[in-house]
Amino acid sequence: MGRMDSHLPPDLTSADPGGLDPADWPATRAQAHRMLDDTLDYIEHVRERPVWRPIPPEIRASIQEPLPLAPMALGDVHQRFLTSVLPYATGNVHPGFMGWVHGGGTVPGVLGEMLAAGLNANLGGRDHMPIEVERQIQRWMAGVFGFPAEATGIFVTGSSMANFMGVLVARTAALGVQVRQAGLAGHRLVAYASVSTHSCVRRAMEMSGLGSDALRVLPVDGHWRMDLGALKETLARDRALGLRPFLVVGTAGTVDTGAVDPLEELAAIAAAEGLWFHVDGAYGALGMLSPVLAPLLKGIELADSIAMDFHKWGQVPYDAGYLLVRDGARHREAFASPAAYLRREERGLAAGHDWPCDFGPDLSRGFRALKTWFTLKVHGTARLGAAMERTCRLAKYLQAKVEASPDLELLAPACLNIVCFRHRGADPDALNTRIVLDLHESGLAAPSTTTIHGHLAIRAAIVNHRTREADLDRMVEAVLNFGSK
Amino acid sequence: MGRMDSHLPPDLTSADPGGLDPADWPATRAQAHRMLDDTLDYIEHVRERPVWRPIPPEIRASIQEPLPLAPMALGDVHQRFLTSVLPYATGNVHPGFMGWVHGGGTVPGVLGEMLAAGLNANLGGRDHMPIEVERQIQRWMAGVFGFPAEATGIFVTGSSMANFMGVLVARTAALGVQVRQAGLAGHRLVAYASVSTHSCVRRAMEMSGLGSDALRVLPVDGHWRMDLGALKETLARDRALGLRPFLVVGTAGTVDTGAVDPLEELAAIAAAEGLWFHVDGAYGALGMLSPVLAPLLKGIELADSIAMDFHKWGQVPYDAGYLLVRDGARHREAFASPAAYLRREERGLAAGHDWPCDFGPDLSRGFRALKTWFTLKVHGTARLGAAMERTCRLAKYLQAKVEASPDLELLAPACLNIVCFRHRGADPDALNTRIVLDLHESGLAAPSTTTIHGHLAIRAAIVNHRTREADLDRMVEAVLNFGSK
Repeated sequence: MGRMDSHLPPDLTSADPGGLDPADWPATRAQAHRMLDDTLDYIEHVRERPVWRPIPPEIRASIQEPLPLAPMALGDVHQRFLTSVLPYATGNVHPGFMGWVHGGGTVPGVLGEMLAAGLNANLGGRDHMPIEVERQIQRWMAGVFGFPAEATGIFVTGSSMANFMGVLVARTAALGVQVRQAGLAGHRLVAYASVSTHSCVRRAMEMSGLGSDALRVLPVDGHWRMDLGALKETLARDRALGLRPFLVVGTAGTVDTGAVDPLEELAAIAAAEGLWFHVDGAYGALGMLSPVLAPLLKGIELADSIAMDFHKWGQVPYDAGYLLVRDGARHREAFASPAAYLRREERGLAAGHDWPCDFGPDLSRGFRALKTWFTLKVHGTARLGAAMERTCRLAKYLQAKVEASPDLELLAPACLNIVCFRHRGADPDALNTRIVLDLHESGLAAPSTTTIHGHLAIRAAIVNHRTREADLDRMVEAVLNFGSK
Repeated sequence: MGRMDSHLPPDLTSADPGGLDPADWPATRAQAHRMLDDTLDYIEHVRERPVWRPIPPEIRASIQEPLPLAPMALGDVHQRFLTSVLPYATGNVHPGFMGWVHGGGTVPGVLGEMLAAGLNANLGGRDHMPIEVERQIQRWMAGVFGFPAEATGIFVTGSSMANFMGVLVARTAALGVQVRQAGLAGHRLVAYASVSTHSCVRRAMEMSGLGSDALRVLPVDGHWRMDLGALKETLARDRALGLRPFLVVGTAGTVDTGAVDPLEELAAIAAAEGLWFHVDGAYGALGMLSPVLAPLLKGIELADSIAMDFHKWGQVPYDAGYLLVRDGARHREAFASPAAYLRREERGLAAGHDWPCDFGPDLSRGFRALKTWFTLKVHGTARLGAAMERTCRLAKYLQAKVEASPDLELLAPACLNIVCFRHRGADPDALNTRIVLDLHESGLAAPSTTTIHGHLAIRAAIVNHRTREADLDRMVEAVLNFGSK
């Protein structure tokens, strides 16, 4: 090879500002400790704040400034955060937050995330202990769900991603690894889920190229669980049409009511029909950590793959989704690919096999395993499971309060930790919408809404480990007050 | 509706352990401050450590314990982390790390991540200031790349995900939103990229159901840039076959050599041929923050979409990938979907339009924007750009050292901040493999390897803002020493 010219411009600056590390470490440290204290204060005193508050227009405008060319002092940026961001966050650290199945976070989780940010590890691959911590979580989760030692698991953002990956693994299992090259032109695959299934499963079908028309949306029974008769009929009809059923998705904790599909029966149907059995356990699956709740999830141990979120019932700070696959070889087949710069070696930093990038779409991956490891170790599964049980007990408490109030109507009973109800006043859809918006703006509580049998429901998802009876009392009292206005 | 029974077991524990917040706040605070100090120590004194070190078998085994049922003291878990995890991390905080294009992280980024973990915000949607911070980054990035105000952007894990989403947006733009329902049975789409394109683009084609056979892999010219003649010929041949070209992927900073495709010419071809023009700018795109480097990326401002990683040249802690799309309506069309429980309201917590979940696969999303906001504000783009320039200058320095050494051979000149070279000794592939493994195990430096024109190359990707000439001197000296053994 001859002389090679660099294509870089000749005028690369010779000014050397000395990298981006602090010029004054002691001052930076002092500021960092103030920031940590403010973070801990936020959690310790969250009950003294409103759950949520509307963003004043001047606050919304306050962060709209030009891209900063010049440096700004760390303390000044933190002050901006304290003024403009922290008081106007989602609110799910607060025990009065009952919307959308958000976890409340824990102090060990926060500190684990801080340590992870300091290490700045990329968990795409290579040989380092952060990967071993993630493998430890894999072994633990395989044990929790009764999966064999060959099971593989991987952290992702959340269950929307984990469900998508479950669809991809099922797709490869059905069509063989050649689908990755050949694509889906000419495919005749169909998948099955209930009408209560989370919308991300439909999106997974879209993203995967199968198309949402290939998702059969089955009705539910009186308890919001997949209608198995309808499943069998639809399977037979699809086979008669020459289509190829390949996947059934059961849900462990539906988003609207917390219902759990009949997982054991679904597993049997999947086995008989040769379908991949994926469970969307986004928030419900971790109920397996509680010996009291685990029986409600009976059959989840028969799944081929399970999606779950540690940031929901597991209380790990956002985001920490997870996919567990019974047959690691199938999992690898769907994602692993060779690349010159991802060579594996016998020793050194590039040693090891089965890097996480072989089991999912990401090569750049933060160290989500660490905040999860801290949460599981510091609290222990017994306390985590007990906290989940309490949210269910609180749901029963809320159900009883609703049933005892002549002005309130239960729309769905407490399945796991979700209760759907409404105020009985005139024009109930509009009334209950207004009640929830008033609730939000009051800062007293933040349930969300959904639609149950065509009726707008106030939906209280009790997920936060800080929530107590008094928080529900306050919410119900406010619903009655706002409803009578 | 009649009386509804709860499906919860009657034996929910009545023991109330009081949630998961610390029983002893002052002790927890003291421990948290020790953890913060250890994190800052790790960064301040990283030069005193080896870049990387092999994991002793007893350390690897030390974290393999049963799932913890009982609680463990926070300090004890931290001690386990200090003993078993921190000394055996990836090493990319260290200035001697030159493998795989990893950023070095910064203190404001670490602290931003800590604050985000404390807030525990879910950035899937709803009306809160964390979403406004992410929108601010969107406006900034639209400005940096000369995109219009309608441009939309979204944080993801990394560019593997952002490139996948770029393929999905391009797919929807080509086939219309109905592709989401109908799927890809019968599609005839083909995409174009060079042989130097990152392997995640092929995986994106696989995951999307298009199949990697539908990706035309074009040769590169003598400077590792896409061969435009070959592109035009292949386009013509595919059209003659009745196929439908829909996407061309240009790269701003290829993974092997740091080459930048001729983006301006690619944009012109894409416009003439009606193709979506996506740029994989995983590590190179942020070079736009430097007025010196921006001209090397000329044409990126004409892209329809750009993938990039703030955790590479942007030095934000892992992970912080980003997708920017010129036409926000196209972006939304590929992902937005209605769901009862994701209703938007006029006011309250569920107010606002265009939630992030309308622009990507995730509903659970951490607050990646905050560590990025802190990094951009505290350092300012001038210093961030200067740090990038320095890595390029260091690459030229390394190239000159290689060229000046009779025992070393340059395999690819410094494009941006990557240099590929090798020792000239006998059996060079085996020799240079061994040199890199010895280098890793020495803890002196950690470049990676790749294949250049069929030859195994030592690949030094100089990304870390802490790296200096002395770090390269040490690496080259060690290469010569290990090579002469």
